Amino acid sequence: MLELERYIDLWRGRVNSCLEEILPPEGNTGMQGPTGAVNADRLADAMRYSLMAGGKRIRPVLCIAAAEAVCDTTSAAFRRKTEDALLLAACSLEIVHTYSLVHDDLPAMDDDDLRRGRATCHVAFDEATAILAGDGLLTLAFEVLSSERMQRNTEPGVLLDITHRISRASGYQGMVGGQMRDMLAERVRLPIEDLERIHRKKTGALIDAAVYVGARIAGADAHQIARLGLYSRHIGLAFQVADDILNIEGDTERMGKAVGTDAERSKNTYPALLGLDKSKALAASLVDRALKAIEASDRRSDPLRAIALYIIERNR
Amino acid sequence: MLELERYIDLWRGRVNSCLEEILPPEGNTGMQGPTGAVNADRLADAMRYSLMAGGKRIRPVLCIAAAEAVCDTTSAAFRRKTEDALLLAACSLEIVHTYSLVHDDLPAMDDDDLRRGRATCHVAFDEATAILAGDGLLTLAFEVLSSERMQRNTEPGVLLDITHRISRASGYQGMVGGQMRDMLAERVRLPIEDLERIHRKKTGALIDAAVYVGARIAGADAHQIARLGLYSRHIGLAFQVADDILNIEGDTERMGKAVGTDAERSKNTYPALLGLDKSKALAASLVDRALKAIEASDRRSDPLRAIALYIIERNR
Repeated sequence: MLELERYIDLWRGRVNSCLEEILPPEGNTGMQGPTGAVNADRLADAMRYSLMAGGKRIRPVLCIAAAEAVCDTTSAAFRRKTEDALLLAACSLEIVHTYSLVHDDLPAMDDDDLRRGRATCHVAFDEATAILAGDGLLTLAFEVLSSERMQRNTEPGVLLDITHRISRASGYQGMVGGQMRDMLAERVRLPIEDLERIHRKKTGALIDAAVYVGARIAGADAHQIARLGLYSRHIGLAFQVADDILNIEGDTERMGKAVGTDAERSKNTYPALLGLDKSKALAASLVDRALKAIEASDRRSDPLRAIALYIIERNR
Repeated sequence: MLELERYIDLWRGRVNSCLEEILPPEGNTGMQGPTGAVNADRLADAMRYSLMAGGKRIRPVLCIAAAEAVCDTTSAAFRRKTEDALLLAACSLEIVHTYSLVHDDLPAMDDDDLRRGRATCHVAFDEATAILAGDGLLTLAFEVLSSERMQRNTEPGVLLDITHRISRASGYQGMVGGQMRDMLAERVRLPIEDLERIHRKKTGALIDAAVYVGARIAGADAHQIARLGLYSRHIGLAFQVADDILNIEGDTERMGKAVGTDAERSKNTYPALLGLDKSKALAASLVDRALKAIEASDRRSDPLRAIALYIIERNR
């Protein structure tokens, strides 16, 4: 696992530097509540606060690992032509993910106080600022995807294709739709098929998109896309099952967010519907299936393999 | 004015039909609060409720009028090649505008109950649904802009360019940034320059983008873009000054939203800072400047001229 950690660290660092370049410049105001004075930077501060709060950067790293599976990310050609666009696309995925956390944590939604080890955006700032920061982040993702810098070394057709994929994965057919259904299902016992459907939208769709986007930017052919799509489909669900388990078994400090909250809210989760042991077995079997999908691939898929294993390893 | 009304009616009808095609299919649930049952269509219902609530469709019509100023919208070539993309782009502008209304009306923001003549989204549904409906709409706009249908007859480079323009106009540098500053400035007296800066972001940026997008899709050259940009800059500000005036002089029934609310909240508005008469004079002078910017243009710019006049006419 050490090697994966180095891999994740390396790319997480590059993703973070790239996010710094994308974000509006730092404000001077810290996180005090509105003082009455007009503070032009409060929005930028809130966006930065939530985006740079740490976070595992799993989606960007998956995106990059998918590119790695398709082309040599250490080659000069990659460095010259593909790396910057790949990083920007990876960042846009993290930005979309972060916006969804900011909005999901709002009092009217999941009402969470802790995220990534610190106060959620609406607690550190206020509700209105958190709503707008989420809106600003979501919009920023699409600004990045259509930016001149992004267009410098990528075919416009490819950019439109990944923009479309990310928007579909994030919108009413994907993440937003999944979140809505998840909330409506609180306090109702769901059949397991419905839970799977919700999770595939809420978490799976953007993870799927992350892998697709990386592969597409790296120039994957239809065969590679299909194989990686199978991998990401299983990984996306495994990730959510593992998250459900961590909400029971994890500790707040390591997770950076409150645990035990699903049971409190009588949420539909895999452990609630299947029990803890069967949920763990399901996660393991999904990871196996993900690994199987890419078993014919060479060593360049090792980061993808390591990420798959990490998903269940982090339970321990 | 009758001719403009026919023009707006014609294109509003086409925009509405196009929005119908874009929206997720209708749910079966009406607007009851959550009953506990899992309702897959609640999100789609809320998105539709807010988007199809009427509305003047000023931004789409401006977008189309800008295209009209550049090319012949009655020609067979336009109908075959450009019209569909223009309508889709116009719809994406209205979708972005509607999302911003849904979020701005939220209790944590402006806390408005009435919009477009009916209950605001969070009143008709609930707060969580309204947040998600706004998110779903914003994402949908970018899904539309990058869709295959949009790509059918438009250069990918043009699509990326208009996507970038719309995202910048809507995000932290534009609409979202303007809304943040506007809220922070409540109960503080602003200098008129700051108010102008806020309004240029909050309302002006998207109106600017609407004109730019229409012109760009119609194939405007740099000279035409510059001229139309000057027009839209003045119109965008005039529109907000007029809106401030209507918040005092308009009636709720005609406006479809509560009036008198700015004064209640001690908001910074043009009438509050300049007085009513000077505000009217300013709106008229901005419209004059907008008309001046396109005075060299032929009759194809008449819809743009009529819209400019409509902005101050609607005060009477």
